[in-house]
Amino acid sequence: MKNKVEPRILAGFMELLPDEQILFNKYLQIIRETYEEFGFVPLESPMVEYSDVLLAKIGEDTKKEIYRFNRGEDDLSLRFDLTVPLARFVAMNAQRLNFPFRRYQVGKVFRGERPQKGRFREFYQCDIDVIGNGKLGLINDAEIPAVIYRLFSKLNFGDFVIRISNRKVLTGLVESFGYKDKTDDVLRIVDKLEKIGKDSVVEELVKVGLDLGGANKVIDFVKIFGTNTEIVDQLRKMGISNESFEQGVNELEEVIKRAYEFGVPEKNLKLDLAIARGLSYYTGTVYETVLLDERISGSVCSGGRYDDLAESYTDVSYPGVGISIGLSRLFSQLLASGIIATESNTPAKVMVITLDDDLKFALEVANELRTNGIKTEVYIEDDKFKKKLSYANKVGVPFVAIIGEDEIKLKKVTLKNMKTGEQEMMSVEEVIKKLK
Amino acid sequence: MKNKVEPRILAGFMELLPDEQILFNKYLQIIRETYEEFGFVPLESPMVEYSDVLLAKIGEDTKKEIYRFNRGEDDLSLRFDLTVPLARFVAMNAQRLNFPFRRYQVGKVFRGERPQKGRFREFYQCDIDVIGNGKLGLINDAEIPAVIYRLFSKLNFGDFVIRISNRKVLTGLVESFGYKDKTDDVLRIVDKLEKIGKDSVVEELVKVGLDLGGANKVIDFVKIFGTNTEIVDQLRKMGISNESFEQGVNELEEVIKRAYEFGVPEKNLKLDLAIARGLSYYTGTVYETVLLDERISGSVCSGGRYDDLAESYTDVSYPGVGISIGLSRLFSQLLASGIIATESNTPAKVMVITLDDDLKFALEVANELRTNGIKTEVYIEDDKFKKKLSYANKVGVPFVAIIGEDEIKLKKVTLKNMKTGEQEMMSVEEVIKKLK
Repeated sequence: MKNKVEPRILAGFMELLPDEQILFNKYLQIIRETYEEFGFVPLESPMVEYSDVLLAKIGEDTKKEIYRFNRGEDDLSLRFDLTVPLARFVAMNAQRLNFPFRRYQVGKVFRGERPQKGRFREFYQCDIDVIGNGKLGLINDAEIPAVIYRLFSKLNFGDFVIRISNRKVLTGLVESFGYKDKTDDVLRIVDKLEKIGKDSVVEELVKVGLDLGGANKVIDFVKIFGTNTEIVDQLRKMGISNESFEQGVNELEEVIKRAYEFGVPEKNLKLDLAIARGLSYYTGTVYETVLLDERISGSVCSGGRYDDLAESYTDVSYPGVGISIGLSRLFSQLLASGIIATESNTPAKVMVITLDDDLKFALEVANELRTNGIKTEVYIEDDKFKKKLSYANKVGVPFVAIIGEDEIKLKKVTLKNMKTGEQEMMSVEEVIKKLK
Repeated sequence: MKNKVEPRILAGFMELLPDEQILFNKYLQIIRETYEEFGFVPLESPMVEYSDVLLAKIGEDTKKEIYRFNRGEDDLSLRFDLTVPLARFVAMNAQRLNFPFRRYQVGKVFRGERPQKGRFREFYQCDIDVIGNGKLGLINDAEIPAVIYRLFSKLNFGDFVIRISNRKVLTGLVESFGYKDKTDDVLRIVDKLEKIGKDSVVEELVKVGLDLGGANKVIDFVKIFGTNTEIVDQLRKMGISNESFEQGVNELEEVIKRAYEFGVPEKNLKLDLAIARGLSYYTGTVYETVLLDERISGSVCSGGRYDDLAESYTDVSYPGVGISIGLSRLFSQLLASGIIATESNTPAKVMVITLDDDLKFALEVANELRTNGIKTEVYIEDDKFKKKLSYANKVGVPFVAIIGEDEIKLKKVTLKNMKTGEQEMMSVEEVIKKLK
């Protein structure tokens, strides 16, 4: 090989093989459909935006991760999430939208993190948000777990729990200790509890200014244990007189009660005061969803309530509540751990193969099957029958419809189940009935 | 507004409003499904690649259009089509693929053209290609029109014609005139016939070295008129003794004959010798698809046969045949001309609205409808009934299910058709039957 360029892709940019991509698309489809089942509206923002628009509110840490470049006189960036484009979209198009505006977006985002196992630089986010114009009822916070519940039931990745809390509770507690200016720090640090452990959290809390007693109280607090009702009861009994705390407890109780009405089973919704979410962006209800299978670490679906979506762009207040699924990472963990497995290298349900090169009847059969919603590949290359069958085997198509002289005469096909090896001659109508 | 960033997007980067996006997604879905119906396998390449990989074979004109930037020590580019990534993918993964490799990819590509009406800088391409390892039978060239035919029938954009030719025919003709070194130039110029007209084409042909007689002969040739059979007959009768010419005519005749076998009606497949495709990349069959509606200009689906897909990356030859649809531009033309129209601002088929704030039964109904595949939004905000109904009206949901005291008692809903205004109280089972 001379004068050839080595074909390669960037680290952290996922590219799947056919069987993997087919499986990935199945999940994408379930996600899109479930979001639409609840009346969320699709939105698709550009991949590239003006940097001043996209990075209006971004922190210094995230800034380093942005794919940013100049073109002509324009300073451009690849989108790093789907929330900022939503904020920009709402601010731009508010008069043409109906509020509450329920939108979903499923698409790739870009973050130039240092590549590590299971982390991607280009990855899918699958978001829903409900945006109010000026106000948005707490009932919306209760619908979100219903969407998550329905979605993860359908995705069938095993048992899962939606952890729920409300940032006002912990904020209020910290305020009641007299650390009103430390609430953001405390929530950011508590968020790391599962990752870095109790001792490190205490250490960090002390470092930002809490005394040791206060730090330990915070830890004891977020570890309060019991059923959802028991935790709420305990919180009330603490007799903490702080407005934020009381409002947080009330909201939490109400959201959980209403979520049950939405059909979320009690076992799938767990009040957990340690859920803080790192982002100061969130102002009330927060969610994290975990799979009970230990091989999948961390939250697979997180989000919460925020007061002001589009404050970078407008003085109008757009409160909202939403969640996001980082699908690329989740998919790659599920696949690597064997919780999910690929099935086939083709979307086709059946492959029509002929004994000789007369394709006429085979093509009629294929068109008939397609018209009846059955994905049908025809092996059209003029190869030996054995080679055709071996191809069908290798791509893993579930059924093969064999057509030889007899079949053409009888206007039938021999349908072979590639898993069991069973085969039977039947009419096209019978094939349709069997495969539908 | 102070300290606010003006929310705006880049020119040429399409962002649709909800009703438009819903319609756009409907077409995307039809395209994906139709490609899969023929057994094409989904592929999704990264948006960003190494510039040396992506731009290995690119011309100087296109180079200016590339979104190219550095990150760290990496020279990166946004993909400008889906064919180069396919070539790179095949070269990288050949041992893990089954040939013929039938892949489709639907995704955005980026070209920084000067923005003009109907042109986008970020736009969707929807491609299929069949790739052989070393060889690929001509029969594949006949299946492509079958896919186009089925797809555009389903898309329902009105009557269309797939124009077909074979570059070898015109190449052979030009060779027979003694202009063997001018064939690429001639094809590139002839490709512009519809755009710039006969006189300008003659002028350009003379400019690259043809004599006036030769140039006029080329024009007469590509204007040969008749049924497909008549044109083939005329070509044969010309008695041009040139290998490329003869092979081209034979291939063209064979591909058209077989395409009919694949179910393409004669009226939808038209031999047109003026179809040359600008790219020297194509080596045999070429396709362009036009809508008969005059408001849609140019080819909406083009492609052809090529000898060597991955020559930039490997010495192994991968011949292929494929097509591409530039969906963003087509969609925007169809919408602007009124050939297609948006229908609704929500994917929901029905919206459940309650007379008071008791949502319990409404949520049960919604879950039942969703379980039966009916997309159902519940108006959950605690607003006045009139406001709820007005929202339903504005988003354009086809049906509203009204729930008041009577309905709760009777375990029924009042289903209102928002178009006709008709309404009737019925059980949830009856709603399901009606809306499915």
